[in-house]
Amino acid sequence: MDKYKQYIEENKERFLEELFELIRIPSVSSNPEHKADMRKTAELVKANLLAAGADTAEVLDTAGHPVVYGEKLIDPALPTVMVYGHYDVQPADPLELWTSDPYEPVIRKTEIHPEGAIFARGACDDKGQLFMHVKAFEMMVHHNELPCNVKFMIEGEEEIGSPNLGKFCEENKDKLKSDVILVSDTGIIDNETPSITTGLRGLSYVEVKVTGPNRDLHSGLYGGGVANPINILCDMIAQLQDESNKITIKGFYDDVIEVSLDEREAMNKAPFNLEKYKKAIDVKEVLGEKTYTTIERTSIRPTLDVNGIWGGYTGEGAKTVLPSIAQAKISMRLVPDQKPEKISELFDAHFKSIAPPSVKVEVKYLHGGLASVTPVDTPEYKAADLAMQKSFGKEVIPVRSGGSIPIIALFEEILGVKSVLMGFGLDSDSIHSPNEHYGLFNFFKGIETIPYYYTYYNELKS
Amino acid sequence: MDKYKQYIEENKERFLEELFELIRIPSVSSNPEHKADMRKTAELVKANLLAAGADTAEVLDTAGHPVVYGEKLIDPALPTVMVYGHYDVQPADPLELWTSDPYEPVIRKTEIHPEGAIFARGACDDKGQLFMHVKAFEMMVHHNELPCNVKFMIEGEEEIGSPNLGKFCEENKDKLKSDVILVSDTGIIDNETPSITTGLRGLSYVEVKVTGPNRDLHSGLYGGGVANPINILCDMIAQLQDESNKITIKGFYDDVIEVSLDEREAMNKAPFNLEKYKKAIDVKEVLGEKTYTTIERTSIRPTLDVNGIWGGYTGEGAKTVLPSIAQAKISMRLVPDQKPEKISELFDAHFKSIAPPSVKVEVKYLHGGLASVTPVDTPEYKAADLAMQKSFGKEVIPVRSGGSIPIIALFEEILGVKSVLMGFGLDSDSIHSPNEHYGLFNFFKGIETIPYYYTYYNELKS
Repeated sequence: MDKYKQYIEENKERFLEELFELIRIPSVSSNPEHKADMRKTAELVKANLLAAGADTAEVLDTAGHPVVYGEKLIDPALPTVMVYGHYDVQPADPLELWTSDPYEPVIRKTEIHPEGAIFARGACDDKGQLFMHVKAFEMMVHHNELPCNVKFMIEGEEEIGSPNLGKFCEENKDKLKSDVILVSDTGIIDNETPSITTGLRGLSYVEVKVTGPNRDLHSGLYGGGVANPINILCDMIAQLQDESNKITIKGFYDDVIEVSLDEREAMNKAPFNLEKYKKAIDVKEVLGEKTYTTIERTSIRPTLDVNGIWGGYTGEGAKTVLPSIAQAKISMRLVPDQKPEKISELFDAHFKSIAPPSVKVEVKYLHGGLASVTPVDTPEYKAADLAMQKSFGKEVIPVRSGGSIPIIALFEEILGVKSVLMGFGLDSDSIHSPNEHYGLFNFFKGIETIPYYYTYYNELKS
Repeated sequence: MDKYKQYIEENKERFLEELFELIRIPSVSSNPEHKADMRKTAELVKANLLAAGADTAEVLDTAGHPVVYGEKLIDPALPTVMVYGHYDVQPADPLELWTSDPYEPVIRKTEIHPEGAIFARGACDDKGQLFMHVKAFEMMVHHNELPCNVKFMIEGEEEIGSPNLGKFCEENKDKLKSDVILVSDTGIIDNETPSITTGLRGLSYVEVKVTGPNRDLHSGLYGGGVANPINILCDMIAQLQDESNKITIKGFYDDVIEVSLDEREAMNKAPFNLEKYKKAIDVKEVLGEKTYTTIERTSIRPTLDVNGIWGGYTGEGAKTVLPSIAQAKISMRLVPDQKPEKISELFDAHFKSIAPPSVKVEVKYLHGGLASVTPVDTPEYKAADLAMQKSFGKEVIPVRSGGSIPIIALFEEILGVKSVLMGFGLDSDSIHSPNEHYGLFNFFKGIETIPYYYTYYNELKS
């Protein structure tokens, strides 16, 4: 397949320029102000699919942001690979921490990416990764070597929990019929160590509001006599975890499937250097659930993180206010077989039960998704294993990730199709953070690997 | 003195229009953007003093916002009253909770103020109250009945802890020589129950910053394995108070002078209706230090309140971020003999001592002030008691307030002069909050009462 490498080499600049065009549209799904940008991005994805060789491509409406669907069906007797990706991105704020415009991609070299990396929101998650599929597809079609049928389902609501994709799948079961769903929205251990994600955590995301007095009060006149909702919220949040960092919500661990000691042992053999890990994020010590390693804490154990908190006076200088309201966004990562709806109900009941009678508490369920685990003894997984072995020239490690792509569990439930998570990002890519980036090595390695997947998958299935 | 009442009646509209002009300048001392507004306000105060009859008035520079000084000295043999007030105001935010523009005063009737109240930032605190003195002075000068010498010291940094007024007093000791400092920056129990503030709490105001990882991380990839600074900050704040709502900072209570049971008993005889209190701020239960009543908790006991907290993602929707930084503004109200500097040092040491090694902690001391208690057996106090008895026609109750005017303790220390806190506001005036207001009854009652004070004080001193 050296001609593929040559094709990549000859078209490098164009591939990047086309990706940049996609990145420049700020398709922030959580912000209603970007509604028009969402459609614009969807239309551009559609145009890219058609240009790459899709027979048909369309922008399909949902109750939220649209889904882009495209396909090239060459023979009903051959297997069908469906590529899933998402064109929406996380908000870019805090903007002041970006060293360049989040929506104007630039290539800069870093220690980890000496050959350069694309810095921009969505560079990795997921525009860069989904675009590898578009370009690999173009390459196979160009050489008339597509070995099986291909479908693309590129959604615009992954970052807000894919609230409308379940219904979309229900309503388009026939159209979406496939043998495997191929997803590049995860990562590898490092550029020397290819890996495939075999597990994802689920998610339950809530927003809480604690109301004390009906208006902001003077902290001198009322302080000491009236419950301060910020103090109370802090106290309630502190109570959600005990001293061993276990979550105290009643029933929280009831459905957790404990991972066997054997599997934990295997997991802890993956290359991981705690000192390097701490140094990369500049912390003196890690912190997590007692009796588990960092690898385990971030993959097979459920968590509770406050993602945002606000209340009272947050401007310059001092304001002596006893505020009326304090709020927080709290998310829990889940593991099999925790159910997000059940967890959010347990949270709601528990959180209200620990509130003193001096405040009012509201809990709003924002979104959630199930955890999932991929078996490794299937043709779908083996094809990815072989493809990466081929392109990296190394053994491929199965890894359970701590992130969530809630839709993976839904795909299996609604469409009855397993997904394979063959992503090419790195943990250090700062996805969801300022200065998100995606290595050029990773982008082009992905384009190189994907055709191998098609070939091996077709071989294994026939 | 019926001619004074008549003068007030005849000049009502002008008094209000002049006050409104003062209120319309947003003199927010904590915000550097309002630097020019501060000077503009100071100049207008000066012009008002001159117009009212001061012999001289000037705007004097400090390292911060200027002080307005004015005087009318009629006879060195007569006592000198110095009026202290401040022309700066608290920030108006959250703006969306105001029902009218905070800097465009309007008069609206309320349940408590059936005759109407002025709604605007600074209407009560302290533009409305200091302006009563300017108008009372005008009235006495107009009738050529000023019974003693008068000085005015109107500062522009009270709301940020008067950082430059101590030095100003040091440098202007001669100019500021006086027998009593008369301050209207406090309140009365209600419009039927005149009272004088005989105690003020001190203040120690700090800002804390907890840093976890060096950048915002993806809460899926890192969650559970890395300390979340918001969770940690909440935990640390929760630890600052125990289950009986006592403050746990080591040494915090060491210098607290316990108030005698007799005094506490007398204090609890003041008119106070807990059900009404709770209803007015819409809380089911009050909350505070065990074994103390609400009156005691808000006057003779020190407190710890989080005035603001922020960190992570606080926009619309869900962002799964494990933030790098969490911050809070925390203030402690102090009682005699707690020292603000010592308390902030104790806080600093304690707060850092409870931080886990997985985060970095910074503590910044924003400002502070000493608590103060006024004796009631002096001519200075008695004149206020008699003046209010006269204008209200009722017995006047001495009250220890929970608020802080740190400069009162400094006046005594530097100038050797006691202050009398004869204010006319109400706790329900929403000072420091949206929809601050000041009753027309209170404004005009103040103007009526002040000349009595001068008269009685002159009589008692001679």
